[in-house]
Amino acid sequence: MDHRGRLKRLQSELHHNRLDALLVTHPANIRYLCGFTGSAGALLISQSRSLFFTDGRYTQQARAEAQGPRVVITRSSPLVAAAEWLTAKGKKQGLRNLGIEGEHLSVAERGKLGKTLTSGFRLREAPPLVERARMVKDADEINCLRSAVLLGSGLFDRALEVIRPGVKEIEVAAELEYAARRAGAEAMSFSTIIASGERSALPHGRAAMAAIPPRGFVVCDFGVILAGYCSDMTRTVHVGSPTEESCRTYGAVREAQQAAVQAVRPGVRVAEVDGVARNILKKNKLVRYFTHSTGHGVGLEIHEPPRIAAGQTEVLQPGMAITIEPGAYVPGKGGVRIEDMVVVTEHGCEVLTPTTKELITI
Amino acid sequence: MDHRGRLKRLQSELHHNRLDALLVTHPANIRYLCGFTGSAGALLISQSRSLFFTDGRYTQQARAEAQGPRVVITRSSPLVAAAEWLTAKGKKQGLRNLGIEGEHLSVAERGKLGKTLTSGFRLREAPPLVERARMVKDADEINCLRSAVLLGSGLFDRALEVIRPGVKEIEVAAELEYAARRAGAEAMSFSTIIASGERSALPHGRAAMAAIPPRGFVVCDFGVILAGYCSDMTRTVHVGSPTEESCRTYGAVREAQQAAVQAVRPGVRVAEVDGVARNILKKNKLVRYFTHSTGHGVGLEIHEPPRIAAGQTEVLQPGMAITIEPGAYVPGKGGVRIEDMVVVTEHGCEVLTPTTKELITI
Repeated sequence: MDHRGRLKRLQSELHHNRLDALLVTHPANIRYLCGFTGSAGALLISQSRSLFFTDGRYTQQARAEAQGPRVVITRSSPLVAAAEWLTAKGKKQGLRNLGIEGEHLSVAERGKLGKTLTSGFRLREAPPLVERARMVKDADEINCLRSAVLLGSGLFDRALEVIRPGVKEIEVAAELEYAARRAGAEAMSFSTIIASGERSALPHGRAAMAAIPPRGFVVCDFGVILAGYCSDMTRTVHVGSPTEESCRTYGAVREAQQAAVQAVRPGVRVAEVDGVARNILKKNKLVRYFTHSTGHGVGLEIHEPPRIAAGQTEVLQPGMAITIEPGAYVPGKGGVRIEDMVVVTEHGCEVLTPTTKELITI
Repeated sequence: MDHRGRLKRLQSELHHNRLDALLVTHPANIRYLCGFTGSAGALLISQSRSLFFTDGRYTQQARAEAQGPRVVITRSSPLVAAAEWLTAKGKKQGLRNLGIEGEHLSVAERGKLGKTLTSGFRLREAPPLVERARMVKDADEINCLRSAVLLGSGLFDRALEVIRPGVKEIEVAAELEYAARRAGAEAMSFSTIIASGERSALPHGRAAMAAIPPRGFVVCDFGVILAGYCSDMTRTVHVGSPTEESCRTYGAVREAQQAAVQAVRPGVRVAEVDGVARNILKKNKLVRYFTHSTGHGVGLEIHEPPRIAAGQTEVLQPGMAITIEPGAYVPGKGGVRIEDMVVVTEHGCEVLTPTTKELITI
């Protein structure tokens, strides 16, 4: 991973954002910038240098992993240590305008920072500079995502073996998660969703003790974390033979999903992609059952910018990795969602998820 | 669960803390106070009423789960909705001094709140009132913890079946997690630690692709979430026959653990319990290898107050549920940790974890 290049690009943006330094505390941002994978640390970045503060639990790990910044091991909290360093040396180095990550720093942490810093420093919520950089993945990251997606999609085959009427949803989840771990996944990227029968109409129906009924949809939404990168996919299968209405619903969601994928290319606004899926569901009188957005970015975190949703103005760029996942959830009946991960390319997009979207009946 | 009683007790504390209302946004605190298990919501509590704001994804769930507060479904973010409600009706009801949870609210959320509220309101970081209440578990909670601990301890038997030289740590974790899910666990309460050989000297050695070596300690630290409540236990086994030094290290950690458990009773300061464990390791010349604190509270979250550590002034009370987990980690050699969950009783404590602490060799 090109940690040094990322750090350098961020440093070159500080001046333009009227910041002398940025204090990065969000673990995913720290990992992105310097490779450290632990959970406690503070990365202080000025135009000319970078320092990574962490505590004694991470001495070895920080020295092995953190590429670029000088590592400072502290007995106090990393944040307080960064503030103490700034108090002692910051002003001499012209570091007065300090950016913090407002989305990630708690009010209490902000308070501690303010108390530790002497007067003369100005703390300000910085724009999401690291999140913006993270939106566009480089080749190494896309390789990581590809590996995670392939591991994830293999789990669907296991799901097909175990989904049967009477089997509990949580048992299906257990089998997927077991296969994921045995294949080397660090964790699932979110709580596995196995939602069967009427529960398939819950967009976020975590696998429960409910037994899969003899007939109906089963929404399977799951992902893994592999080498730090997340996968995310959804397939919906049908237990027993589907009614005509179920086939129509499935067909409409599938058409919406495929059309939205077709719409993904550089220069397109994300809201347009969302609109493409929504229009097809509208044509099929299902749009009021499509109660969430069409997708989201994926990378070191399972939900990252951009959001693929109405009203969002972000423009797609090559290297963005996003999900396309329209759905339709008919209360009391059931739901369908189909989700792939795609990467924006120079002229369109590449679908990473290799799994069929034919309606599979069990 | 006595959600109504909890809410009432909290309401009775507001005046004493010079708060007209408290805005609770931390999901575990919301769950504790009203039973809602979703991840997005804001619970506004004044002395005479309570309102729970959440979004459309949770309409059914909030109505089914939230006990006590009036449920308000919002199209904006729950936090902004709460601020809008306060702007419209708060002052008439005398709600001007508003407490926020500074440890949990982000600087950006605090900013949004400030922008949405009209002038005349005073926002202030409230003391951790809910966390303090949560420290002392009621009978229903202790039953939940007991069930989680029993499920968790059963997993250790599975670990004993699979830990063998050459087996990968992550495979052991996979087996434990699979058994946990099949037994109904919602999730593991933290990343499973299986740390073998030299890696056992890493206090937080997450299960990795490393194969278990033919000889050495294997630290197994894991827990489940069952009905919302967490379990946490550690046992250290030895693969191959242990050296005399390894036996001495194990014996010392075991003695320290048991002495610390013996020291747990109402009225004792948590630092004293930590000191008991530390003194025994000191006597055995191992104290410099004991690099973390002796324990922590457990409940709806895996790490809750009180911390059982040097310098902490909290006094044990009946109903507190804590871990006792001293360890010794000799770099380049290996580590030992033994951890039980205990509940403080009227005259001492009850050890919830039923698993033997004899040194098991494999």
